[in-house]
Amino acid sequence: MAAEPVVCQFRVRYSETDQMGTFYNARALEWFEVGRTELLRAIGVPYAQMEEQGVLLPLTEAHVEFLGRARYDDLLVMTTTAEMTGRARLRFDIQIEHAAVTDSLPLGGGPGRGAVVRGWTVHAITNGSGKPTRPPEWLLAALAGQK
Amino acid sequence: MAAEPVVCQFRVRYSETDQMGTFYNARALEWFEVGRTELLRAIGVPYAQMEEQGVLLPLTEAHVEFLGRARYDDLLVMTTTAEMTGRARLRFDIQIEHAAVTDSLPLGGGPGRGAVVRGWTVHAITNGSGKPTRPPEWLLAALAGQK
Amino acid sequence: MAAEPVVCQFRVRYSETDQMGTFYNARALEWFEVGRTELLRAIGVPYAQMEEQGVLLPLTEAHVEFLGRARYDDLLVMTTTAEMTGRARLRFDIQIEHAAVTDSLPLGGGPGRGAVVRGWTVHAITNGSGKPTRPPEWLLAALAGQK
Amino acid sequence: MAAEPVVCQFRVRYSETDQMGTFYNARALEWFEVGRTELLRAIGVPYAQMEEQGVLLPLTEAHVEFLGRARYDDLLVMTTTAEMTGRARLRFDIQIEHAAVTDSLPLGGGPGRGAVVRGWTVHAITNGSGKPTRPPEWLLAALAGQK
Repeated sequence: MAAEPVVCQFRVRYSETDQMGTFYNARALEWFEVGRTELLRAIGVPYAQMEEQGVLLPLTEAHVEFLGRARYDDLLVMTTTAEMTGRARLRFDIQIEHAAVTDSLPLGGGPGRGAVVRGWTVHAITNGSGKPTRPPEWLLAALAGQK
Repeated sequence: MAAEPVVCQFRVRYSETDQMGTFYNARALEWFEVGRTELLRAIGVPYAQMEEQGVLLPLTEAHVEFLGRARYDDLLVMTTTAEMTGRARLRFDIQIEHAAVTDSLPLGGGPGRGAVVRGWTVHAITNGSGKPTRPPEWLLAALAGQK
Repeated sequence: MAAEPVVCQFRVRYSETDQMGTFYNARALEWFEVGRTELLRAIGVPYAQMEEQGVLLPLTEAHVEFLGRARYDDLLVMTTTAEMTGRARLRFDIQIEHAAVTDSLPLGGGPGRGAVVRGWTVHAITNGSGKPTRPPEWLLAALAGQK
Repeated sequence: MAAEPVVCQFRVRYSETDQMGTFYNARALEWFEVGRTELLRAIGVPYAQMEEQGVLLPLTEAHVEFLGRARYDDLLVMTTTAEMTGRARLRFDIQIEHAAVTDSLPLGGGPGRGAVVRGWTVHAITNGSGKPTRPPEWLLAALAGQK
């Protein structure tokens, strides 16, 4: 029960850099949010509409591995997948790489030239007041690609 | 080889909230940075000075568990510890709780009333150009409390 | 009809720096928000409580002058004042300086050694659904110092 | 001596919202930075290359008017122009509007349906160590469209 990977591109903003000359670490979680937004749109359940219908996906856990540098204005490619984990949790997996082969220094032994960040987030499924709920059928169907 | 826990307090800024009415998830990593800064200052090796001496601590991995809500202007308490992990990596562990007992809704089954975020970060130790280096003796001594 | 200046201190966070090695410009507006929060608390009308009572202060205009550099971990002092402007707008004026005399380079001809940022924000006064309202009497009284 | 307007589109990120349900005010300055980046790229002098050549454009002044709401995932259009102001300062003017006609509530009497933010920034022109310099000929030529 997993959606097809969704790919999007973006550039590192100046506001996302820090004095080390690369992106500031917390920006990775902001990018992950963009990846989730684009995946949910791609499978037909835009998150803005989900929230209006009273279905929220608050984070319960996040994990980030920093694999390489990315500088201001670098063009990055983000690949996002999603699947249910257990009965009531949704998990997104994200990979971010350089769009083009670069000479930027790998940091920490990444899995390959060009990798920047890899990670995942786990989300509860709640109603508008934050109470856990069962995943709606339309969400499960969208994730399964049975639209 | 671990420093004593360092405790600091801070309030949730309006800029750190999102439309769900609680703090935005990536802010946790920004708060962790504040915790690291205060721990390194407390053990006598302020990070601003470390960087000037060409010792950097870029993140290689981060893990965050979201345990409860925190709203704008809530007063939070952050407890930070640090220790070497392996020969060449530094790990910080962080817990963030409400400063006072609150009625805020636990999210995801936290370990106790008032918990907000728990997590850790792992850091490489590099020189000014990003090349991994051995941890300096003064850093090991500071972490061991042998100031 | 102006409140006494309210002064607070804070340190530049690493997450607030950018690759130019000083704070990123938009952080000034986030700091201004902290200044407003502390002023409203000091005059007895904490903004968190105002929002709960359905009185919001959305920004309509902001102006920022960047007067000098401030680096990671620098200790800054922020001075905030507030007054009504016209019948239905609230204006905050902010100055941010280094807490201690520093050798940081003035940028753009600041008004004195140590100045970092100066600016103001103007706010509408609205109800919970964003509709402009008259300023409540308790807000005017708090601003006038007639608590 | 002004470059042609440069137009780009972007969506409001979840991380850019606040608990008022619209974008947080400081995000406007982050968006302005994206507008500057795209304008400089469009006229042939990408800012990443400028910085590598030791030409920096630190902000000295910024002004923002908030004209209307924009919510998470709203598609916005940003129009940026640039011109020299005086001999040694560069000014960017920015307008941000909804990409489509929306029913979002105007705030503060905007100039028209769909306007979100309008503002400008003024920049010094400095060398890599922050010292003001004359604008390079290639920058003036690019701004004048004499590429």
